[in-house]
Amino acid sequence: MSRRIRKSEVRKLNNYWNKKINSIEPYVAGEQPAEGVKVIKLNTNENPYPPSPECKKALESYDLADLRLYPNTDAMSIKEAAAKAEGVAPENVFVGNGSDEVLALVWQTYWEKEYDQDKAVLVPEISYSFYPVYSDFYSVRCRKIPLKDDFSIDWQDYADVPNCGIAIANPNAPTSKVMPLEDIEKILKANPDSVVMIDEAYQAFAEDYVSAVSLIGKYKNLVVVKTMSKAYSLAGLRVGYAIADKDLIEGLIRARDSFNSYPVDRLAQLIASAALGDREYYEETRAKIISTRKRVAEELKALGFTMPDSGANFLFAKPPLPLKAETLYKNLKAKGILVRYFNKPVIGDYLRITVGTDGEMDEFIARVREEIDYVKNS
Amino acid sequence: MSRRIRKSEVRKLNNYWNKKINSIEPYVAGEQPAEGVKVIKLNTNENPYPPSPECKKALESYDLADLRLYPNTDAMSIKEAAAKAEGVAPENVFVGNGSDEVLALVWQTYWEKEYDQDKAVLVPEISYSFYPVYSDFYSVRCRKIPLKDDFSIDWQDYADVPNCGIAIANPNAPTSKVMPLEDIEKILKANPDSVVMIDEAYQAFAEDYVSAVSLIGKYKNLVVVKTMSKAYSLAGLRVGYAIADKDLIEGLIRARDSFNSYPVDRLAQLIASAALGDREYYEETRAKIISTRKRVAEELKALGFTMPDSGANFLFAKPPLPLKAETLYKNLKAKGILVRYFNKPVIGDYLRITVGTDGEMDEFIARVREEIDYVKNS
Repeated sequence: MSRRIRKSEVRKLNNYWNKKINSIEPYVAGEQPAEGVKVIKLNTNENPYPPSPECKKALESYDLADLRLYPNTDAMSIKEAAAKAEGVAPENVFVGNGSDEVLALVWQTYWEKEYDQDKAVLVPEISYSFYPVYSDFYSVRCRKIPLKDDFSIDWQDYADVPNCGIAIANPNAPTSKVMPLEDIEKILKANPDSVVMIDEAYQAFAEDYVSAVSLIGKYKNLVVVKTMSKAYSLAGLRVGYAIADKDLIEGLIRARDSFNSYPVDRLAQLIASAALGDREYYEETRAKIISTRKRVAEELKALGFTMPDSGANFLFAKPPLPLKAETLYKNLKAKGILVRYFNKPVIGDYLRITVGTDGEMDEFIARVREEIDYVKNS
Repeated sequence: MSRRIRKSEVRKLNNYWNKKINSIEPYVAGEQPAEGVKVIKLNTNENPYPPSPECKKALESYDLADLRLYPNTDAMSIKEAAAKAEGVAPENVFVGNGSDEVLALVWQTYWEKEYDQDKAVLVPEISYSFYPVYSDFYSVRCRKIPLKDDFSIDWQDYADVPNCGIAIANPNAPTSKVMPLEDIEKILKANPDSVVMIDEAYQAFAEDYVSAVSLIGKYKNLVVVKTMSKAYSLAGLRVGYAIADKDLIEGLIRARDSFNSYPVDRLAQLIASAALGDREYYEETRAKIISTRKRVAEELKALGFTMPDSGANFLFAKPPLPLKAETLYKNLKAKGILVRYFNKPVIGDYLRITVGTDGEMDEFIARVREEIDYVKNS
């Protein structure tokens, strides 16, 4: 399905598909175990804790007969709850069917098609691997900017390059590294004519980083995208949102209304707004994950792993030689533990390990220790 | 938001939006009353009956903790339930976030961009008004084919016209008219190199029409799109699906995986598959609506309305002179009854009236009678 085909040699896989569908290389999500198969799932950065108890309460008093009616097109209850949680006005919020849909609309709204101009959208070379997929699918030129050797993103690399837009994940994935807010501000200042998108899927887990939402109001070219899949434990509900100046939000609404007028269903609206309202549970859950992450990072370092400081709900860790990332990934999988391995240059020496519960991580560490002992003794 | 802008005179509404977003005219959905406002809502073809009781049962035994995990990317439970209901294999089914999303992916998968070829997708001039919006948004040339004077679609109009694809709603909206299956087959035969999409949102309410799904297997260029919003009373849940040869389905999957890997959330998968499994309730509900529709059609005709025979859950009716459609729409609205009025050529003399419960339709008829009496006496 994801065979790579060079533009210059497009041969049709299927005559009924258009040229674009014949030539793209779709995104490949992390593997999902079959229903009922018991694994410790540390490969797609899901939250190990259930969503807020307020979600269940909201659902208990809901009359399913209402499902016969179309949902509110703007997902107003989420818009209002997100605005309150983020300290902005509802007009600064756009809600979508997962942050992936919001990102897809960002690509379609702000950045010019390749046949309309030569300029590219700038993305870090190592980042969310959906960015180049969107660029290709929506025919937006994409220029990949290498990271520094320590996996950091240098704001200066985004200051003097002609572009039609900039997309940066912060904290970045899969590196887990956080870019300081001052650097984001420098990028915004250097590119007043481009929309700069900061994808904060993992922001809740970055302790010392203040969300770029704090810059909304100051920069009309900033859009911050957030997901409820990670910090709110709602990956299965598909809710994400963008925060931006109201003129930028209006553009996303135009794109949505040319594609799907009601992208967020009634139950998702009900449950997501309940989760957003429970700030105490949100703080509690992220604190637990941050604490487990720190502990596991120390234990892995003691075993010889190296890794950047993580601001996310995962660690990006390189096993000690002679243990190879790919081997460790495969052996853990055989033992019922899934982590994410990227068979790619630069990051192929690392594993991306989601932070699970303390119990899951104890099991993970125990299995890793076995692998290290085995390699040492053989 | 929907100001019309000619391509030749594109001036930017907003400099941060790309050219496409500056130039499009988004789809405008039927108005929605504010939450809690009591109206008889006959304007967006929702089902007046609640969804199957099986939906509630499925939800009762569901553990919300599972929402922390991503949903199945293919919505396998819906795929299987829909395959069973439609008499096809699961590999012939593609599930999306409402049939609007499925339609948007059809436009992006099968039909070439205007800069790749000159050929257009053919659509009936009067049909679902989202079709030209998709065409514009996804840069697919669109050629509108006029209906016959009786609102019927003549298959011969689609037989000799060069095209890159064909999109037909059957029953058509807002006309409510059904095209015979033989005519669809003639269009399929006449266009072996084009993908022909039949949008059967209202098929459940067409008594003597056998779904074009019966032609899957025979025609590799056919894709049938269905929604769960109408016959299954699940407009608020956002589930639709496409049925086609597995190679066509594979194309839709490639498009989806370049846009949003998990478009259907866990609760939507749970509830939609429960609804699809309850055939008895489905048959019962559609029979009730067909029966009410027939009765209301007779009553409106007795009052002097004219209308095509309806195969849908709505009537497309022209009020008797001197009563004007727009006036009647406005006066009914003032009395708490919403119907749909299209301020457009050809169809501006008609109202699209959703079939509600018998009680709602009695109220509707009573108010219409008042309007007719008022016009007669003034």
